[in-house]
Amino acid sequence: MSHVTHDAPDATLQATFLAALRTALPDLRLLTDGADTDAYRRDMTAYLQPGMPLGVAFPNSTTEVSTILRLASEHRIPVVPRGAGSGLSGGAAAIDGALTVVLTGMDRILHIDPDDLYVVVQPGIMNAALGRELAPQGLFFPPDPASFEFCSIGGNLAENAGGLRCVKYGVTRDYVLGLEVVLADGSVIRTGGRTVKDVMGYDLTQLFVGSEGTLGIITEATLRVLPMPSPNRTMLAFFRTATDAGRAVSGITRAGVVPVTLELMDRFTIHAVEAALHVGLPADAGAMLLIESDAPEVVADAELDAAAAACRAVGALRIDRAGTAEEADALREARRKAHWSLERAGVARMEDVGVPRSRAAELIAAIEHITTETGVPVGVFGHAGDGNFHPTFVMDPDDPEGERKVEEARARLFAAVLELGGTVSGEHGTGLVKRAWLERQRGADHVRILGAIKTALDPLGILNPGKILALD
Amino acid sequence: MSHVTHDAPDATLQATFLAALRTALPDLRLLTDGADTDAYRRDMTAYLQPGMPLGVAFPNSTTEVSTILRLASEHRIPVVPRGAGSGLSGGAAAIDGALTVVLTGMDRILHIDPDDLYVVVQPGIMNAALGRELAPQGLFFPPDPASFEFCSIGGNLAENAGGLRCVKYGVTRDYVLGLEVVLADGSVIRTGGRTVKDVMGYDLTQLFVGSEGTLGIITEATLRVLPMPSPNRTMLAFFRTATDAGRAVSGITRAGVVPVTLELMDRFTIHAVEAALHVGLPADAGAMLLIESDAPEVVADAELDAAAAACRAVGALRIDRAGTAEEADALREARRKAHWSLERAGVARMEDVGVPRSRAAELIAAIEHITTETGVPVGVFGHAGDGNFHPTFVMDPDDPEGERKVEEARARLFAAVLELGGTVSGEHGTGLVKRAWLERQRGADHVRILGAIKTALDPLGILNPGKILALD
Repeated sequence: MSHVTHDAPDATLQATFLAALRTALPDLRLLTDGADTDAYRRDMTAYLQPGMPLGVAFPNSTTEVSTILRLASEHRIPVVPRGAGSGLSGGAAAIDGALTVVLTGMDRILHIDPDDLYVVVQPGIMNAALGRELAPQGLFFPPDPASFEFCSIGGNLAENAGGLRCVKYGVTRDYVLGLEVVLADGSVIRTGGRTVKDVMGYDLTQLFVGSEGTLGIITEATLRVLPMPSPNRTMLAFFRTATDAGRAVSGITRAGVVPVTLELMDRFTIHAVEAALHVGLPADAGAMLLIESDAPEVVADAELDAAAAACRAVGALRIDRAGTAEEADALREARRKAHWSLERAGVARMEDVGVPRSRAAELIAAIEHITTETGVPVGVFGHAGDGNFHPTFVMDPDDPEGERKVEEARARLFAAVLELGGTVSGEHGTGLVKRAWLERQRGADHVRILGAIKTALDPLGILNPGKILALD
Repeated sequence: MSHVTHDAPDATLQATFLAALRTALPDLRLLTDGADTDAYRRDMTAYLQPGMPLGVAFPNSTTEVSTILRLASEHRIPVVPRGAGSGLSGGAAAIDGALTVVLTGMDRILHIDPDDLYVVVQPGIMNAALGRELAPQGLFFPPDPASFEFCSIGGNLAENAGGLRCVKYGVTRDYVLGLEVVLADGSVIRTGGRTVKDVMGYDLTQLFVGSEGTLGIITEATLRVLPMPSPNRTMLAFFRTATDAGRAVSGITRAGVVPVTLELMDRFTIHAVEAALHVGLPADAGAMLLIESDAPEVVADAELDAAAAACRAVGALRIDRAGTAEEADALREARRKAHWSLERAGVARMEDVGVPRSRAAELIAAIEHITTETGVPVGVFGHAGDGNFHPTFVMDPDDPEGERKVEEARARLFAAVLELGGTVSGEHGTGLVKRAWLERQRGADHVRILGAIKTALDPLGILNPGKILALD
C-alpha cells in the first residue's frame, strides 16, 4: 500500500489542462516544478511514499476552486485537496499526475456571532488561530486534535478530527452547522445553514464531513461554538495494571461524571516518558489516567472528588491533584509528551483504534499479547474516555525484518480491535493507510453503497481517487 | 400537494407480489382489506389526504423486513416504512398501491450498557418507553419530541426529531452511534458501531438519520445515552414585546448560560392559553419565556439567576420562579398546553420553521405582518433557544376561503424564513408537505445531489417514493 499511484492522464491532456488553467486564472499561484511541489507531496504519515503531482495550486476564493474543478473535470485530471498537511492517514498525499489544491490561502474568519454561537470560516484557517480569535469574545471551538497548532479547520472537517476534549464535547462533525462545497464539476452548493435544527432533505453536511475530499472541496464552513468553559482542574491517577485503570474509567462513568479529558498511558509509555523527562512517574505503575474537569469551580471539585473515589475504589497506587494552573500544566506534560517520548525509543508508528470504552483493558491485554508474539514493542496511550487509543509500535531501525514485523503486529491489532467491536480508525481517517481494512470492518454491501455514493457525487472519479475507497 | 399519488403497479403484479410475500413469510401479519388498512393510512398531518395502500405488513424481525424489500424490489412494489404514525410532514402517509411496513412490532431493547453509555434498540419502541427503562439505571436519552409518549424511536430517527431539550442536548442525530439498515434490494448493512469515535469510510449513519425511509429501513439502532441530570429548575419571564424576549434570549446566551429548555410563546398564544386555562398569565404580556436548568442544584440556581438578570436587563414585566417540583410543573403547564389552546380557537395548522436564534423577534414581526395582510390569525410558540418555532395558523372552519388564505400565509411565512437565513422545517421533516420548498431553500445543484444519492441507494425508486424528493 505504500506507493500512491493512479492511472495518470496522458501528457498532452496534462499540458492542455495546465494551459487552460493558466488562461482561466492568470493570477492563480501554480507550481509545476518538482523542486517546488515536493514540499506538498506528503502529509504527516511519514512511512507513506506519495505520488508525483502534476502541479500544486493555491486558490484564494471559491470561484477559483470552482474553475479548477470545472477544468479538471473537462480534462479528466485528478485533484487532491490539501489543508496544512498534518494528516495521519495519507488523505492529502499527492497522487501521480494529479493537481494538488492547497486551501491554506483561504484562511479568513468571515463572521463571529456570539448571539447565535456560530462562526463562519474559510477552510485554511488553523484550528489554534480560530481559538485565539474566539477567546476574547468568551467563545471556544471544542474540537482540539493534538495537532491544533498546525492543522487547518478544512483538514479537521475532511477527517472529522477528534482530540482530547471529545469525551465531553464530541468530535468535529458535532460542531458543523453548514458548508459551502465545490463539487467535482465545479458547481457550488451550500449545505445546512446557521440554524441549529434543520431537517430539509438529507444531511449532506454530515456526508461531506469526514469524506477526505473525495466528494467535494469544502470552501466555507459555519461552525457551532460554545461559551468558554472554566479553566481545567487536573488530576493524575496511577494504577497497578491497565485493567485497574479500565475499571476506574467505568467507575467514573457510573458515577455520572463526564470529565473534559480522560486520557490513559500504559506501562511502556509511562517508562518511555519517565526515561525522557524524569518527572517522577512511579516505576511500578501499569497505567496512568489524566482526568480533567472544565466545569464551574465548585462542580469541578465535586467531579474530581468523585473521580478520585472511583480510582481509589479499584486500588489506585497514587493520585496527584493540581492546586494551581502551573501544577496542572506539569501534570499534563507527561501525557503531552507521550508520542515524542516513544519516538526517542525507535521508529514510532502510531495507530488509531477505537473500542467501546469498557473494553480498553481487554484491548491493552491483546496488545501485550501481540508484542510477545511479534517481538515489536508498543506503547499505548490515548483517549480512554472515548475508547480511542494510539498504540504506537516502536521499530528497531537496524532490524531488516522491522517493517515486516510491524505490518504483522498492525494486522493483528486491527483484527483484535474488530473482535472487540471496535474501529480501525477512531479519529485519523481511512485515507490510504486504512482502506484495505474498510470492507473487513464494514462488510461488502456497506462498501458497495459507499462506492455508489462516491460515483453519484463524482461520476468521473477525479476527486482524491483511491483515498478511502480503493480504485477498481 | 394534498393527495398522495404514485404510478401504481398493475393489478397482476400486485397480486403476484402479495402471493409471493405470503409464500415466503406465511406467519407475517399482512392486512389487505381497506377496512383494516385504513387505520395505517394517515400520520398526524391531519390535512393531508393519503393514498390507498396495497396492504399493510407488520414484520417482527430484520429477516422479515429483508424478505419484504427483496420481494418488493423484484415486483417493483413501492414500500412506505411506518413507525407510530405521529409524524407531522406526511413521511409515513400511505401511497396508492404501495405496501406500508409497520415497524412497531419490533420494539425490544436489546442491550443497555451503563459503562459505555449506549443502548441497542429495535425501531418500534416508543420514546417514552425507552426513557422508562433507562431511568432506573440512572440514564436518559435526551431527544424528547412533544409526542414522546406516542412516537417511536424509529420515527425519531427517520425524521431526526427534536424536542424541548435540544438547546442543551442537540437533536436525535447527535445520539446515534450505529444502525442496522435494510436496503431497497433486501441486503442488510450495519453502519457506525458502539464506539463514540469512528472515521472509517463515509458517515452512512448520519445519511440514514432524517432520510424518512427513502434510503432504507432502519431495523436496529445503537443510541448514545447520558447520565441522568438533576431535576429541572424552572422559571417563567414575561415581556412587553417579542423583541424584548428576543433580546433576553441573546442576553442569556451572552451570559454563557445554556438552559436545558428555553421556550417562547407570543401574545396570541398567551391569550389563547389564558382563555383556555385561566392560570393568571398577564394580559399585557407580548411574549413569555420558559427557562429551565437541569444542572446540579447550585449551578442551576446560578444559571437561573443569570437568566433572570438578562430578563430584567431588557425590562421583563414579571418573573415567576418555581420553588418546588409542583410549582415547576404548574409553570410548565402554559407552554405544554399552547398547541391545544390554539386548537380550541379554530382549525389549527402548525408549522415548524427555524431561524438563527437572534432573529426570532424579526421572525415574529414578519409573522404579525403576514397576519395583517392575509387576515389569518397565528399563534407563535416554540424553541427560542434553537430559533425553532411552530407558528400555528388558526383557520376559521366556516370561511370558504380559509384554506386558500392559510396556503397564502404559509407561503409568505416560508419566504420570510428563508429571507432571515432560516429553514422551512426545523424538526418535523420534509416529507410531502415541505418538499415543494426544498429546492428554493437548498438550490437546484444541491437537490440534484440529493436525487443522485437517492438513486444510488434505491435505483428502482421503491422506497417511500415522492417523500422528501418529488417524483420526476
